[in-house]
Amino acid sequence: MAEIRRIETGQRMSQAAVYGGLVWLAGQCGSAGESIASQTQESLASVERLLAEAGSDKTRIVNTTIWLANMDDYDEMNAVWDAWVPEGFASPRACGESRLGGIGWGIEIICVAATS
Amino acid sequence: MAEIRRIETGQRMSQAAVYGGLVWLAGQCGSAGESIASQTQESLASVERLLAEAGSDKTRIVNTTIWLANMDDYDEMNAVWDAWVPEGFASPRACGESRLGGIGWGIEIICVAATS
Amino acid sequence: MAEIRRIETGQRMSQAAVYGGLVWLAGQCGSAGESIASQTQESLASVERLLAEAGSDKTRIVNTTIWLANMDDYDEMNAVWDAWVPEGFASPRACGESRLGGIGWGIEIICVAATS
Repeated sequence: MAEIRRIETGQRMSQAAVYGGLVWLAGQCGSAGESIASQTQESLASVERLLAEAGSDKTRIVNTTIWLANMDDYDEMNAVWDAWVPEGFASPRACGESRLGGIGWGIEIICVAATS
Repeated sequence: MAEIRRIETGQRMSQAAVYGGLVWLAGQCGSAGESIASQTQESLASVERLLAEAGSDKTRIVNTTIWLANMDDYDEMNAVWDAWVPEGFASPRACGESRLGGIGWGIEIICVAATS
Repeated sequence: MAEIRRIETGQRMSQAAVYGGLVWLAGQCGSAGESIASQTQESLASVERLLAEAGSDKTRIVNTTIWLANMDDYDEMNAVWDAWVPEGFASPRACGESRLGGIGWGIEIICVAATS
């Protein structure tokens, strides 16, 4: 059995699991109640930090799912997203509306990336 | 071409596909109309059963997505989830609200796990 | 580092990423405002086209997520889906309701498939 390396493991979830050349990240959120631009920036900063801990980076993402609590925030989120993505390295992406687990959470970003 | 092993294959979906060191599970639901605690327990029992058929188990999950039909059920779901997760082996997780395909379905749990 | 091969890469997203024996597809939609049956057919045609470019096909899908903007369209979508799936090769699947990023988009289909 190949080892699964977990990052920031709690009773409910780990923030990441590294296995078989992939790192799977937990959904990353920003600070409840802040603007969507700010929450998106925070979420993406968490994605970058976790990818670095896993030996990956934002040029190595193979899949991204984005949930917005309110799809009316689509353009505001995309402005931050588009500036963050390194040119030529954009991942496949899907974006849907979903009410999230915390009050005031506007966005949750879920990434899978290559580690090898 | 490496073989894909499918478990409980119907015309609409298989309940699992095993390939390349991973098993991908179909979304698992409980009995429509039962309490969220009960539906969560049933869903997790189905996850365990399918993981066992694939040669994996709940200490080897690399990703979990949870959809709740009503996010007000978050705490009731989490109480069952937290008790089910083996200490030190929690997977990355994301949880969002999504109306589900069957009337009375309150939860759908989607897992990916390591098989080797 | 193994190369990630991307297909139809823009600033916001790629339509597919091939890595480690898997191809990850971006969420595929049909033409806004068309019937759900039509949008489903278009989405699935895009899935097939991208799988072919990645060296895979619809007998090699290991996971499918379907988002419907309105779960009332479940049966209309399934009629198209069930006819499209090759008998004996159905993937694991999950289907939830989620408002989508474009006005008039009724369905988004997200697939992961084996390439080797």
